[in-house]
Amino acid sequence: MSFEPFLNPAAIAVYGASERETSPAAHILRNLLTQGFGGEIIAINPKYETVAGHPCVASQVAGGRRADLAVLAIPPQAVPAALRDCGAVGTRAAIVITAGFNDGDGPAGRERLLRVAREAGIRLIGPNCLGLLRPRLRMNATFQPAMPAPGGLALLSQSGAICSGLADMADGQGLGFSFMVSLGNSYDFGLSDALEMACTDPETTVIAMYVEGVRDGARFRAALSEACRRKPVIVLKAGRHAESAEAAATHTGALVGSDRVFSTVLREAGAVQVATLGGLLDAGRLLTAAPRLPGGRLAIVTNGGGAGVLAADRLSDRRLHPAPLPQDLRERLDGVLSRNWSRRNPIDIVGDATAAQYRATIDACLDSEGFDAVLTLLSPQSMTAPDLVADAVLAAHHRAEKPVLSCFLGGASVASARARLRRQRVPDFDLPENAVQAFAAALQASTASPGAPETPRIAAPRGPDEASGLARTLAELGPLPAGLLSDTGSRRLLASAGIPCPVPQPAATAQEAVRRFVETRGPVVLKIASPDISHKSEVEGVRLNLRTGDAVEAAFREIVAAAQARRPDARIEGVTVEPMLAPAHPRELLVGVNRDPVFGHVLTFGAGGTLVELLDDVATALLPLTPGRATELIARTKIARLLGDYRNMPAVDARALAELLVAVSDLCTALPQIAEMDINPLIASPEGLFAVDARIRLEAEVTPLLTGERDDLG
Amino acid sequence: MSFEPFLNPAAIAVYGASERETSPAAHILRNLLTQGFGGEIIAINPKYETVAGHPCVASQVAGGRRADLAVLAIPPQAVPAALRDCGAVGTRAAIVITAGFNDGDGPAGRERLLRVAREAGIRLIGPNCLGLLRPRLRMNATFQPAMPAPGGLALLSQSGAICSGLADMADGQGLGFSFMVSLGNSYDFGLSDALEMACTDPETTVIAMYVEGVRDGARFRAALSEACRRKPVIVLKAGRHAESAEAAATHTGALVGSDRVFSTVLREAGAVQVATLGGLLDAGRLLTAAPRLPGGRLAIVTNGGGAGVLAADRLSDRRLHPAPLPQDLRERLDGVLSRNWSRRNPIDIVGDATAAQYRATIDACLDSEGFDAVLTLLSPQSMTAPDLVADAVLAAHHRAEKPVLSCFLGGASVASARARLRRQRVPDFDLPENAVQAFAAALQASTASPGAPETPRIAAPRGPDEASGLARTLAELGPLPAGLLSDTGSRRLLASAGIPCPVPQPAATAQEAVRRFVETRGPVVLKIASPDISHKSEVEGVRLNLRTGDAVEAAFREIVAAAQARRPDARIEGVTVEPMLAPAHPRELLVGVNRDPVFGHVLTFGAGGTLVELLDDVATALLPLTPGRATELIARTKIARLLGDYRNMPAVDARALAELLVAVSDLCTALPQIAEMDINPLIASPEGLFAVDARIRLEAEVTPLLTGERDDLG
Repeated sequence: MSFEPFLNPAAIAVYGASERETSPAAHILRNLLTQGFGGEIIAINPKYETVAGHPCVASQVAGGRRADLAVLAIPPQAVPAALRDCGAVGTRAAIVITAGFNDGDGPAGRERLLRVAREAGIRLIGPNCLGLLRPRLRMNATFQPAMPAPGGLALLSQSGAICSGLADMADGQGLGFSFMVSLGNSYDFGLSDALEMACTDPETTVIAMYVEGVRDGARFRAALSEACRRKPVIVLKAGRHAESAEAAATHTGALVGSDRVFSTVLREAGAVQVATLGGLLDAGRLLTAAPRLPGGRLAIVTNGGGAGVLAADRLSDRRLHPAPLPQDLRERLDGVLSRNWSRRNPIDIVGDATAAQYRATIDACLDSEGFDAVLTLLSPQSMTAPDLVADAVLAAHHRAEKPVLSCFLGGASVASARARLRRQRVPDFDLPENAVQAFAAALQASTASPGAPETPRIAAPRGPDEASGLARTLAELGPLPAGLLSDTGSRRLLASAGIPCPVPQPAATAQEAVRRFVETRGPVVLKIASPDISHKSEVEGVRLNLRTGDAVEAAFREIVAAAQARRPDARIEGVTVEPMLAPAHPRELLVGVNRDPVFGHVLTFGAGGTLVELLDDVATALLPLTPGRATELIARTKIARLLGDYRNMPAVDARALAELLVAVSDLCTALPQIAEMDINPLIASPEGLFAVDARIRLEAEVTPLLTGERDDLG
Repeated sequence: MSFEPFLNPAAIAVYGASERETSPAAHILRNLLTQGFGGEIIAINPKYETVAGHPCVASQVAGGRRADLAVLAIPPQAVPAALRDCGAVGTRAAIVITAGFNDGDGPAGRERLLRVAREAGIRLIGPNCLGLLRPRLRMNATFQPAMPAPGGLALLSQSGAICSGLADMADGQGLGFSFMVSLGNSYDFGLSDALEMACTDPETTVIAMYVEGVRDGARFRAALSEACRRKPVIVLKAGRHAESAEAAATHTGALVGSDRVFSTVLREAGAVQVATLGGLLDAGRLLTAAPRLPGGRLAIVTNGGGAGVLAADRLSDRRLHPAPLPQDLRERLDGVLSRNWSRRNPIDIVGDATAAQYRATIDACLDSEGFDAVLTLLSPQSMTAPDLVADAVLAAHHRAEKPVLSCFLGGASVASARARLRRQRVPDFDLPENAVQAFAAALQASTASPGAPETPRIAAPRGPDEASGLARTLAELGPLPAGLLSDTGSRRLLASAGIPCPVPQPAATAQEAVRRFVETRGPVVLKIASPDISHKSEVEGVRLNLRTGDAVEAAFREIVAAAQARRPDARIEGVTVEPMLAPAHPRELLVGVNRDPVFGHVLTFGAGGTLVELLDDVATALLPLTPGRATELIARTKIARLLGDYRNMPAVDARALAELLVAVSDLCTALPQIAEMDINPLIASPEGLFAVDARIRLEAEVTPLLTGERDDLG
């Protein structure tokens, strides 16, 4: 659809217009009438002929009017008629402020409303939302009074209160918005739609989202990837912990997927996740001023050492160390600054620095090839003229291609300087750490988005033989039971997908055991085979490292005899024979898969073994995986360092490991009823890879992912 | 000394008084004359008879005057005479603003200045500092103009710019200060003195420090512990990374110890470390309003779900989950709130909440035994009256024993409400996350300080026999060489301290090897003994797991023969015999010691083995250790969970492990020339503990710790 009726309506109808102070519609009408909206305003209420001095009609049909956008702040039971009125005159976009559709009759209320909207040909934001703000048009179609300045930031929010808070504080923060939309219960118009709207809106240069949860995983991922390819996207995900998620679920009725999965979705799409509201605002402020940072080498110019050290600390916290000062720059600054300047980055130009020295230093850093951006810090000192330093910053800001950030620490002494910087949209921050955090986020947005991997929609077959081979093998395995597969069943399934996994082979007689040993071509392990014996060691039912046929034969007899003696009741089927795998330099890894109800199969890779919970060294990726993305996934774990040459251990085959992950991915694609898989440990050694232990749980039927054309959060 | 002349001077002399705008003394004199200081002001400058309309004398002696406090902003070469003038009339406290003492003649300038000060009986803050602010007296003895409001927060800063920035911003932040001191180069008066000053000052209720480095470790620890026992102490440590530390070193010439060691010092003393300037301000704001939090159960009251979820997220980030709503409170609120309130914490009283509903909810939470504090969040909504809600918060703040925090999200709509809250010192925050972070820091201060372990000054002997036993054993070992001890030397030293550590025993003949085997009472390992052979495996010089005398005898002959054959040039001394240790369920641990130049021996405990760098799971403690502190140290690592019963592994002896750490501590106390020790791995198993590998480096002489009566940073 075209988003024009939402973003650039020539005429807006307000259903429920009144003068009652407690009525949201009264506030909406007043906002539209008094804040400078230049389009037509149609007040609708059958009870009045005028409202707030403005003519009022009973309906668009009755009044012979036609709005592009309708705002409905009327009781739930009146909404269907109003939507039909809109449909009748050709209004195609509506914002339903009203709450309470789900009260009493649950999802039915939502379905009824959607049916009416579809019949009327209407896209519908809400219900239960704050509305929409479009500052350039001075269009405040919300029931809160603040109108932020126009600018490049689009705010897409699943919380109305966050919208109203930011709208109110934007001016003081020097933030300008292209639009703000509160999505409410997203019966029809969800985050994916809002992303498309922001993506196609030429006024929007940066997208900021407050998210509690999404429902349509595939569409959200597609919309987010597309948006990230075109504009920086910053995301504040709320409800990151179980407890908070519960609060979020109460709040909007949103279905909150596992937080780790959501972070994976964001990272894979190229969006930047921030942890705090302040982080969202600060990153938005910097990115609207500088949508792409050329690099991470930040020059810190300061007249007080302490602030510089704090900024440098924060840079290092984010693994961005202060870039060194190039020699030629040092020489240039020696000619400008007093003799006790720091001669390194942070560039401490000391307490008596003049505005001219600030200007010369900022210019020199911007001219230098050694720096990508400049952060100007100022503390009020007796010799400091904050307004003149602000002039220097403004001049550099307007002149330079590179971003110039600032932080003037203080209150009254620096208030006018800061106000000017913010009015002119210099990215100016309250505290040094905030400037640096915004810089790190902006850098992430600049480097992540263009290189974001395109999410493959279907698994790329690794070759016709292999792909069809997997399908054939699965067919041979026959119908698989739902529930947890047996150990052998799990191993067989992995082996069928080409994942090295010793499958114990049954041997009913000693002769058969010896034959299995010969086939194995190496030392073997014998284990008692009995459906009645689960703890094999307790009946002396395990023999390791058998290296000759004689040893196997003897072991068979001893094992069976011991089991019969200790458990005379048990059905003994003989033994199983499997290779004795004890490679040198083993690394214990974990490969897990689970199926998120919103985003589908998610693969987890990391350190394995018994310490897995202690280490918590894992990375996650959405399936399907390509070899490239598998390699990138591996590289994100700490244990990756252990896979190459490490101390006295030779490297393992990194390519084979990546291919194994792809094989797991292909198996899940071929067998979508896999609900959970846990290969732990997967042993990686210079001699090869193999799964030691595997658990796979299948669903009886593949539960479809929560999906649809829309984000249905209600 | 008494700090009265610094904090409550009746008369202040300003040396260098002038009207020159570029002179710091001119600013200081003006600040004292015009900002309401009620005491006597003595302007001193031989060049003038009056300055700024104020009488001026050539010296205190010449003018027949006597100040309690002298502020010197005169050239370095004039400072000694001024100090002598002070000494002559009995002025005992001075602040030296002047910089440049170290220029040209290095430490000599410092020594000369200190000698003069001592001869004159003067304590001296500075040089190269901003000065001292005492808001209650309206005493601004700095050269920056801002005068913050009086209050309970003392700021001790190693950066003048941080002082001036905070002084300037304090009013808008609702922060009140008891004093602010900038310590500059701390020739005489350092952080330890400043801590004592803040500790004894009755106006100070909370201590905030900006620290770049300290030099006098023992005195700093003592002063900090004492301060923490009496008042909450919040510390912002700058220069936390190597790069930033370098900037810090340039800045004040401070010696920055390893950051991890410094954090250990802070934690052990009971101080709260914050990572950002904002964190310092926010924690200071909350703690001055509520110096001790009764507990961590925070009720979050909000009219917008989003802000509540963000606050709850941040609580969970800090491992403080939102406390559940007690049933009786829920029933009480059901009678007050509109029917769609959240019925859980965060308590979302929804967008149309009135001030009366806010008040009733806050009161109910304060009355409830289920909560220790209340955070009131507000977003501007059409029905919201921020000023009336502020009334409710203020009433609760004045009435309740429990802290009431607030965060009114927005700008113009909430500005007057926020200003009132801050004027009346309600802890009010800019953003929800900031409120929660301050709450977490304040909670840490409330729980850490009273329980802080008293730092033992000397090792508590674990029993007269043991202590003297260690001394005797060390005496028997004779003089130890400096440098890295040999493997055997390191093991012998550990064994002498009672730390289980198999020491290879030499055996020149097969018979001797068999005797060693019999003594060992268990399987042994034989290794070739030759000063010329370092890679023993390469000459087939290692045999594991020998279980009979015959096997030992045969192995001796084979090893020696193989070595002679392969390395005919080598001097063969026979073999070494050591126990074959391969316990079931081993856990690989690390115990390390190094000697920090400021704080002395520091012990590191954690996960060991080859993965130690990957895991980075270690905790540190200053020595000496008591068994209780050793236990607490162990508990701070992740691997501690693995030491108890873990999956199928029986527990290791926790007490024995703690005692081993104490034994390491005692060894370092007895042998202070230990510069580094690395026991890795230390094997802990249900069968016992033993060190597998150890490296110890000794210094030729014990370098004394940087110490003295004063923090000498210059």
